[in-house]
Amino acid sequence: MTWVAILMGSESDWPVMQATTAVLKDLDVNFEVRVTSAHRTPAATQAYVTEASERGCGLFICAAGMAAHLAGAVAGHTTKPVIGVPIDSGPLQGFDALLSTVQMPGGIPVATVAVGKAGAKNAGYLAAQMLAIGDAALAERIRQDRQDNAAKVAKQNESLQASLN
Amino acid sequence: MTWVAILMGSESDWPVMQATTAVLKDLDVNFEVRVTSAHRTPAATQAYVTEASERGCGLFICAAGMAAHLAGAVAGHTTKPVIGVPIDSGPLQGFDALLSTVQMPGGIPVATVAVGKAGAKNAGYLAAQMLAIGDAALAERIRQDRQDNAAKVAKQNESLQASLN
Amino acid sequence: MTWVAILMGSESDWPVMQATTAVLKDLDVNFEVRVTSAHRTPAATQAYVTEASERGCGLFICAAGMAAHLAGAVAGHTTKPVIGVPIDSGPLQGFDALLSTVQMPGGIPVATVAVGKAGAKNAGYLAAQMLAIGDAALAERIRQDRQDNAAKVAKQNESLQASLN
Amino acid sequence: MTWVAILMGSESDWPVMQATTAVLKDLDVNFEVRVTSAHRTPAATQAYVTEASERGCGLFICAAGMAAHLAGAVAGHTTKPVIGVPIDSGPLQGFDALLSTVQMPGGIPVATVAVGKAGAKNAGYLAAQMLAIGDAALAERIRQDRQDNAAKVAKQNESLQASLN
Amino acid sequence: MTWVAILMGSESDWPVMQATTAVLKDLDVNFEVRVTSAHRTPAATQAYVTEASERGCGLFICAAGMAAHLAGAVAGHTTKPVIGVPIDSGPLQGFDALLSTVQMPGGIPVATVAVGKAGAKNAGYLAAQMLAIGDAALAERIRQDRQDNAAKVAKQNESLQASLN
Amino acid sequence: MTWVAILMGSESDWPVMQATTAVLKDLDVNFEVRVTSAHRTPAATQAYVTEASERGCGLFICAAGMAAHLAGAVAGHTTKPVIGVPIDSGPLQGFDALLSTVQMPGGIPVATVAVGKAGAKNAGYLAAQMLAIGDAALAERIRQDRQDNAAKVAKQNESLQASLN
Amino acid sequence: MTWVAILMGSESDWPVMQATTAVLKDLDVNFEVRVTSAHRTPAATQAYVTEASERGCGLFICAAGMAAHLAGAVAGHTTKPVIGVPIDSGPLQGFDALLSTVQMPGGIPVATVAVGKAGAKNAGYLAAQMLAIGDAALAERIRQDRQDNAAKVAKQNESLQASLN
Amino acid sequence: MTWVAILMGSESDWPVMQATTAVLKDLDVNFEVRVTSAHRTPAATQAYVTEASERGCGLFICAAGMAAHLAGAVAGHTTKPVIGVPIDSGPLQGFDALLSTVQMPGGIPVATVAVGKAGAKNAGYLAAQMLAIGDAALAERIRQDRQDNAAKVAKQNESLQASLN
Repeated sequence: MTWVAILMGSESDWPVMQATTAVLKDLDVNFEVRVTSAHRTPAATQAYVTEASERGCGLFICAAGMAAHLAGAVAGHTTKPVIGVPIDSGPLQGFDALLSTVQMPGGIPVATVAVGKAGAKNAGYLAAQMLAIGDAALAERIRQDRQDNAAKVAKQNESLQASLN
Repeated sequence: MTWVAILMGSESDWPVMQATTAVLKDLDVNFEVRVTSAHRTPAATQAYVTEASERGCGLFICAAGMAAHLAGAVAGHTTKPVIGVPIDSGPLQGFDALLSTVQMPGGIPVATVAVGKAGAKNAGYLAAQMLAIGDAALAERIRQDRQDNAAKVAKQNESLQASLN
Repeated sequence: MTWVAILMGSESDWPVMQATTAVLKDLDVNFEVRVTSAHRTPAATQAYVTEASERGCGLFICAAGMAAHLAGAVAGHTTKPVIGVPIDSGPLQGFDALLSTVQMPGGIPVATVAVGKAGAKNAGYLAAQMLAIGDAALAERIRQDRQDNAAKVAKQNESLQASLN
Repeated sequence: MTWVAILMGSESDWPVMQATTAVLKDLDVNFEVRVTSAHRTPAATQAYVTEASERGCGLFICAAGMAAHLAGAVAGHTTKPVIGVPIDSGPLQGFDALLSTVQMPGGIPVATVAVGKAGAKNAGYLAAQMLAIGDAALAERIRQDRQDNAAKVAKQNESLQASLN
Repeated sequence: MTWVAILMGSESDWPVMQATTAVLKDLDVNFEVRVTSAHRTPAATQAYVTEASERGCGLFICAAGMAAHLAGAVAGHTTKPVIGVPIDSGPLQGFDALLSTVQMPGGIPVATVAVGKAGAKNAGYLAAQMLAIGDAALAERIRQDRQDNAAKVAKQNESLQASLN
Repeated sequence: MTWVAILMGSESDWPVMQATTAVLKDLDVNFEVRVTSAHRTPAATQAYVTEASERGCGLFICAAGMAAHLAGAVAGHTTKPVIGVPIDSGPLQGFDALLSTVQMPGGIPVATVAVGKAGAKNAGYLAAQMLAIGDAALAERIRQDRQDNAAKVAKQNESLQASLN
Repeated sequence: MTWVAILMGSESDWPVMQATTAVLKDLDVNFEVRVTSAHRTPAATQAYVTEASERGCGLFICAAGMAAHLAGAVAGHTTKPVIGVPIDSGPLQGFDALLSTVQMPGGIPVATVAVGKAGAKNAGYLAAQMLAIGDAALAERIRQDRQDNAAKVAKQNESLQASLN
Repeated sequence: MTWVAILMGSESDWPVMQATTAVLKDLDVNFEVRVTSAHRTPAATQAYVTEASERGCGLFICAAGMAAHLAGAVAGHTTKPVIGVPIDSGPLQGFDALLSTVQMPGGIPVATVAVGKAGAKNAGYLAAQMLAIGDAALAERIRQDRQDNAAKVAKQNESLQASLN
């Protein structure tokens, strides 16, 4: 079965990116996590992308902050889908990481999600949705999860109504 | 075979979104194009999403400007992948469309690409990459196209060298 | 008598939105509060908008953060006035929610107020002002409240003068 | 019958604000238009607000660019609803007018719409929606107009389909 | 002798604006401080501007946050110099107050200083510099203060050198 | 009589800065104009500031674009008032010049006006207002000019009313 | 003698980057120009960096727009100085290229200059300054050029004075 | 041997700039640190630049916040390379310092690095890289340090893998 490779530019991105792995675990999607940097370890990054593709990796999720090049660099080394998670590290609060990730030139797309924790969570869902195009059972698990989340909103509403009365 | 649904909030987005259809044609990916609005025709939008899914649509590409809600609205009606193209219409030059498209809350991802024409082109490539996870022939066509694009850069370099000498 | 429907995308918006309900209570305007999401529970949102309108709801106040689509989505389902409160959740501090709420395309207005607590308070005042167009007694209560607020500024000034002498 | 007062900070705003009057004419809502400045003619502005209120004006629409104070200044002189249209004049493209209009402090709301032409159009719709709270015939005309606009989107789609075949 | 009027939109601006009064005290410039709001107490604001001018006030310093209109409103009521201090209250960190204060239309200037505490300090210096155009003794005190500040930088440097050795 | 020194970082700022000299001429205020650069001719800039002060210059107006340091550099060489006009040259549309001019550290104020032409005009008015603190005849000319400008707004309104009927 | 390698992500950057080569020619610094892309031709980019270093290249100048990764990618492959020129292509006017170029993580610096033409010119000067640390003759040429530029500002001033009299 | 001069606008920048000196110490590059201000002590700043150049200083690193002019002012007084470190002091989080430092006009470059601590660290690396153009032993130390940093990323990855199993 195909699986998801999760790359982070720094160990400090891991607390945020656990939101990604939590979603993938819930949806029963296999994944690997690696710390590797577009700038400090470009050769190791490229080697991993090649090797992971050969081992059947279906897509990549890349998280980085500031001038966040990791997703773009990986996208330059593969034609598999690459999801970019902009991390809000540093003083500019993720505006830098967002623009560095999403504004890719024509021909080399990065599927960008929201800055920080919400984006990390959505990277997991988006990866699962991509894999589910050809996996009906996974598609069904995602639909079920969506319903569960809708039920949670309804629960929130009920508890608010209770507190108001 | 699965196919791609392309939705635009307004007919005025069509000149930009032809960059998407050009890529899909080149890569031999089937698609439909619809003008439908998240706000002005929400019922028609929702009906199309449901109906297209039943007819085997594999994923959605949504383009909109300003408070660009179309991609997010479609993402709320389906668990298939949704790609969002922020259009730079109006005075704020696409900053509004970018943030309205990419900053989706946890659970409802939109795979966001660059603002405007570059993003429209990349929406086509990203869609093809997603479908190619389960389609080796398409994956091969994408790889070939990538090589062709690299060759074009080399050509640009050669013509620059010639002009410099 | 007509009343105001207050919708929030998440229970976490409630501490901010109590500034809205406090104003409405002071001005003796009836209201309901619901947690409902544009993306996670679109059907429930739409159903509530329809049903509330039938029960005589005069206008809607919608609060959401990030790619804040709730106000726009509600505005697409009703022709009653919709007030949008951008919430400053997430790393981009409400710039995303502000642009996602205010930059609505022609034909589907959202009456947008300030980001966060000041906006939540003003959503209450604005709702009351709208209802007061046809309700002279409410208009009088609003005028009185305005005078009380002016008196508070004068009080602040007096206490500052006292502390300076 | 109640009517709408439209104020502009400068004659140069009039080409944009004709989008407002076009909507009001279509919906058969009465209005007056005045050029008056928050800064250059504050006394005349205040006098008009008082006098228009006495003549039965139901709400105010105020358009201004740059440090756009007109809507806020009018809101400080009346407790009727005030709609603000940020105009994209000057080099900062309306970011200045948007923040100057929408970020009102608690107690003095301005119902802000999008920057420029789309906002001018929506100011007309929002004004009509407010007046329609107590005017069933106007509410019906707004609903009809919304349906007409939806039909136009459908028309755009049909013409696109025709051009694609 | 002429003096400086300091206006604040809210008592909460006082901790910041004490940086202004500290400078004025050091330079032996007379001043008054008032809490008065452009929006909540426009009549009182206008009355004070008129009355202070009659009592020999030479210029005005106005501090406000968010859609900071106080300086602009005062500038519309007087032809004396008005200094604006943008306060960083609310989630947008003073970007809103800065643009609302500085982007005044032609004919009604506001002399804008930096956002927050540094700006409050400089408002005091700028006011003194304006009054010193016609007051040689004050000009001399300002020059002396500038030298003292230069000496403080030199002191900082010496203490750094000491700590490095 | 005292006079105003106008400095520009580049000859290309002159078309904008003629809005300043037009106002000063109308108000009968003497001035000199110099092209001098904070970075390319720092010694000449400093020499002029010293020499102009000795010849009775009362205040400085400095216009520059991009990383606009001219006003700040002049402010570091004099304790007379310095007015800064941010010019919208280059791709960032004056955001860079605005922040570089207004965000001065405590102790060295620059009285900043709006970006571009409106700011250039207001620099003239602000300079005149400063000089008028000690010049009753100039103060009277400014008051008269303000009334004339108010009359122009009234004229604009009359012509609009005429065109509407 | 050492020389400068100039890389551009696209042929379309060449009109801007001729400002760089013009400066280098004036200062008699040798250079090569190449079109090569961080994303579309990563292998060719890396190969050129290695090969140029072996041929005695002293430093790299890299120009790119949007999510401008070229400078950062080169900086990850060499420990020689890398100068980054953000190009203002695309709707976001170079804000994206600026943040993508300058916000490099610790350990991998990119010496960033202004967006667009001014930055391209300064990349040439900065490169020459770096090489001049160990080349007294080049240092002298740069000093002479600086004096010439200062003389041009003085000329601009003289021509302005002439036109004013 | 040549050395590096580090200038800071205020003692409060020192905690950030120790990241610069730590790198220079590790790479065995000599340096001096001075507190000196572009605005408060312009004469001392200029004197130091001249005197340091005569004592063999090879390049300057300048750190400042807000309207950060120090790097630009130094660059106007020398033709040696100047590195600018934008400091994120004040409410605007370093956006002001970044634009004030990087957007230098043609002819006077400042080699700008990232805002805050990452930039301070990179200023050290960039300075060393410049000096290493003519110093093979230093170049070798930088290459070794780069390898050590790559090894640290690999270590981070190993420790993450260990914690995941």
